[in-house]
Amino acid sequence: MNYRMIGRLISYILVVEAAFMLPAMLLCALGGAGSSAVAFLITISIILVAASLLWLVSRKAKKGFYSRDGLVCVGFCWIIMSLFGALPFVISREIPSYIDALFEIASGFSTTGASILNDVEALSKGMLLWRSTSHWLGGMGVLVFLLALVPISGRSDGFTMHLLRAESPGPDVGKLVPRMKQTATILYGMYILLTVLDFVFLICGGMPIFDAVCIAIGTAGTGGFGVLNTSIASYSPYIQWVCTVFMFLFGVNFSCYYLILTGKFKNILKDEELRVYVCVAVFCIAAITINIRGMYPTFGESLRHSAFQVGSLLSSTGFATTDFDLWPSFSKGLLFTLMFIGASAGSTGGGFKIGRGLLVVKILRRNVRQVLYPNKVQAVRMNGSVVDETVLRNTNGYLCAYVLIVIASFVIVSLDNFSTTTNLTAVVSCFNNMGPGLEGIGPTLNYSGYSVLSKLVLIFDMLAGRLEIFPIIVLFSRSAWKRR
Amino acid sequence: MNYRMIGRLISYILVVEAAFMLPAMLLCALGGAGSSAVAFLITISIILVAASLLWLVSRKAKKGFYSRDGLVCVGFCWIIMSLFGALPFVISREIPSYIDALFEIASGFSTTGASILNDVEALSKGMLLWRSTSHWLGGMGVLVFLLALVPISGRSDGFTMHLLRAESPGPDVGKLVPRMKQTATILYGMYILLTVLDFVFLICGGMPIFDAVCIAIGTAGTGGFGVLNTSIASYSPYIQWVCTVFMFLFGVNFSCYYLILTGKFKNILKDEELRVYVCVAVFCIAAITINIRGMYPTFGESLRHSAFQVGSLLSSTGFATTDFDLWPSFSKGLLFTLMFIGASAGSTGGGFKIGRGLLVVKILRRNVRQVLYPNKVQAVRMNGSVVDETVLRNTNGYLCAYVLIVIASFVIVSLDNFSTTTNLTAVVSCFNNMGPGLEGIGPTLNYSGYSVLSKLVLIFDMLAGRLEIFPIIVLFSRSAWKRR
Repeated sequence: MNYRMIGRLISYILVVEAAFMLPAMLLCALGGAGSSAVAFLITISIILVAASLLWLVSRKAKKGFYSRDGLVCVGFCWIIMSLFGALPFVISREIPSYIDALFEIASGFSTTGASILNDVEALSKGMLLWRSTSHWLGGMGVLVFLLALVPISGRSDGFTMHLLRAESPGPDVGKLVPRMKQTATILYGMYILLTVLDFVFLICGGMPIFDAVCIAIGTAGTGGFGVLNTSIASYSPYIQWVCTVFMFLFGVNFSCYYLILTGKFKNILKDEELRVYVCVAVFCIAAITINIRGMYPTFGESLRHSAFQVGSLLSSTGFATTDFDLWPSFSKGLLFTLMFIGASAGSTGGGFKIGRGLLVVKILRRNVRQVLYPNKVQAVRMNGSVVDETVLRNTNGYLCAYVLIVIASFVIVSLDNFSTTTNLTAVVSCFNNMGPGLEGIGPTLNYSGYSVLSKLVLIFDMLAGRLEIFPIIVLFSRSAWKRR
Repeated sequence: MNYRMIGRLISYILVVEAAFMLPAMLLCALGGAGSSAVAFLITISIILVAASLLWLVSRKAKKGFYSRDGLVCVGFCWIIMSLFGALPFVISREIPSYIDALFEIASGFSTTGASILNDVEALSKGMLLWRSTSHWLGGMGVLVFLLALVPISGRSDGFTMHLLRAESPGPDVGKLVPRMKQTATILYGMYILLTVLDFVFLICGGMPIFDAVCIAIGTAGTGGFGVLNTSIASYSPYIQWVCTVFMFLFGVNFSCYYLILTGKFKNILKDEELRVYVCVAVFCIAAITINIRGMYPTFGESLRHSAFQVGSLLSSTGFATTDFDLWPSFSKGLLFTLMFIGASAGSTGGGFKIGRGLLVVKILRRNVRQVLYPNKVQAVRMNGSVVDETVLRNTNGYLCAYVLIVIASFVIVSLDNFSTTTNLTAVVSCFNNMGPGLEGIGPTLNYSGYSVLSKLVLIFDMLAGRLEIFPIIVLFSRSAWKRR
């Protein structure tokens, strides 16, 4: 294991984190929330001291950097980032309990949007901005950010690739261009562009600038933290529609946007994942609109709520415009299913991912053919080309880990004696980085009632879900730490 | 596809089914339920006519019989068996609706034990016996029965193997002895022996003979149909303990009993699946006993209810001694998890199977090692020997199919507007051949409230669960029907 290189990367990441706290600090200082500004200042100082110490002990790193180094590095980065990111809340006493603050910021970085706050509006604006900033940083990935924007001297493409692979969502991280570093830069460029577009559309709807910033970066990361207790419900229908459209857009594989930029429109239409994504969205919106038709005065309103909630859960954002826990069972069942599925691979969204789900269906179909005709060799194809067996193997492993983690978390969380649906949707919602669930953690409620143990389990689930399990579970794997 | 051979086998199976209706018919005739006896007589006549016709058109079958023939044959057999098996209920008007009757008998053959009856005791004794008989026949498999006891001339070992593999539960059906036919005979021998033992122990506890027969054969098949509205709750603690022990015993891989019979005790202790089975059982019993301690007057009673319910759901039987839907969330969470896990491979129990669960964990561990060290070839071992890659591939395929079927069924069943937990546990309980679920289908309630569509979905789930998916889904697969 290349500990020094990992240490050095973590020190860089900490500096990035401190830099992203500056806007929130400024806002606190300007907005008269002096103690909160001081809390940020103290946190930034602690982070910079820690980063410096880490940088000092990790000089003269070896060159070799392998797959396992990438995984371990990403896992540690996110845990350490969360541990430090929780400090401003605690130091300012805006969230007095450290576990609660950790839950909140892990929910932020993992783009879950699950909150323990009963009254979001009681938070200072700076803290609200920091919550939403964590979504934006977590959405595309902080290591991807580092690789895209900060020149790290003399690093090979393999180095970049291992980190990018470990941090980016989806069964198979494609290169947009031959060089990985450039791929990261292009991804962030498109990410920033879309975020700005979202912001502009929101401003056009008369949304206050502060709200528009928070909602735009929260949507970009498919996070779900709002700035009002009513989430998006009290904004105008126009704003709700803008959010709906952008939630769907951020749930699309970013390589599709690259294809648009480079004029390869034909390839987009052929993209199987995108086609399924659109079909699932259209089907769910239509089915739910019909199912909830009687609950709202007009067809337009039913459609708006239906589209918003489908967009919110399919992209794993977690905003809400209405209390969908009051909807009929069929609609709730569909939304619950969407929580599992999640967004597209290579998007900022969470969940199992449409692409991986497609692979699961294809693996099953191949398996049926293999059982029927044992002597025929069969390949799995996606978008016309054969899928590498390593990707299939990892998809299988991912499904195994997914099921095991959901079951184990559910059993532990059940100790708190909430209803079965509450516990199950809490785990599924956190693990898939959604935010709200059903019953006790429905869109109008929050996670504050859970015990410390349950919160720790859910924090684990959120981070494991965002990093797609492997970077977190290798930290617990004996073979990762074995000397070879 | 060897249609004629499949047709001939189905005609044999129909005769077996008719033969197993005879005891129930006699009981009706002797017990004064004349119209029910007539219903059986009519059904038997219809079955025999159908079998004769089928036998006539399927003479002169080809020799070749492949994996796909075995799967299709098993799938068809079970569907046709259920379609005919429902007739006595309908003809006698004891269950007037055909869909309800089909649900009841599919639940019987698949050893689920889910019922649509509000008042079990209103059924005539003959019908109760037929329900329980279907458990016994379904538990070990009707084709296994045919292969074990009926000499089919000139059939190769491969022929027997394809059928046995398709009908028997577990990721890898082991041969006890080199010849498959003999394996089937030994399996049924042990099955009959254990059933008789169970019966004797029940009689010793003063249980009425009729109840003891039904409960013994219902336990043997890990079914769950009782003869009283209170399931097992109104019997003595001794009888409840006997049921508990035998439920656990019938959830064990039968090859373990063969090892005992042949004196290979050491191999039993080394059996990984058995060890996990015992550990899961002990852990769950202990945890639930502590969790429900305050709900019952004595520790002994808590232990008895805990052990009974764990045995009932771990072995996928589905009997109940108490309304566990009133238990705390943690206990319900554990029981819900047990519904997924199910019994051992090669037992009469349902569910995902402990052995397959173990393989899933091992596949995940291998995958983590592969991600860490991409260039090392790794094998998965079970009980000391390397597991064949085909078995691993099928386990993966099984997991994929399992997840997809649960999700799809859940969404359709949600149309009935019961609670999320009710719908989810209904699907999980039927698919894993348990019987009861939580909330609206808790141990004191039943499935009568579901719509025809939901009942059809649940019937599909029960049969697909019992036959471990493939024999049922190949019927819907285009490649099974393609001419090559």
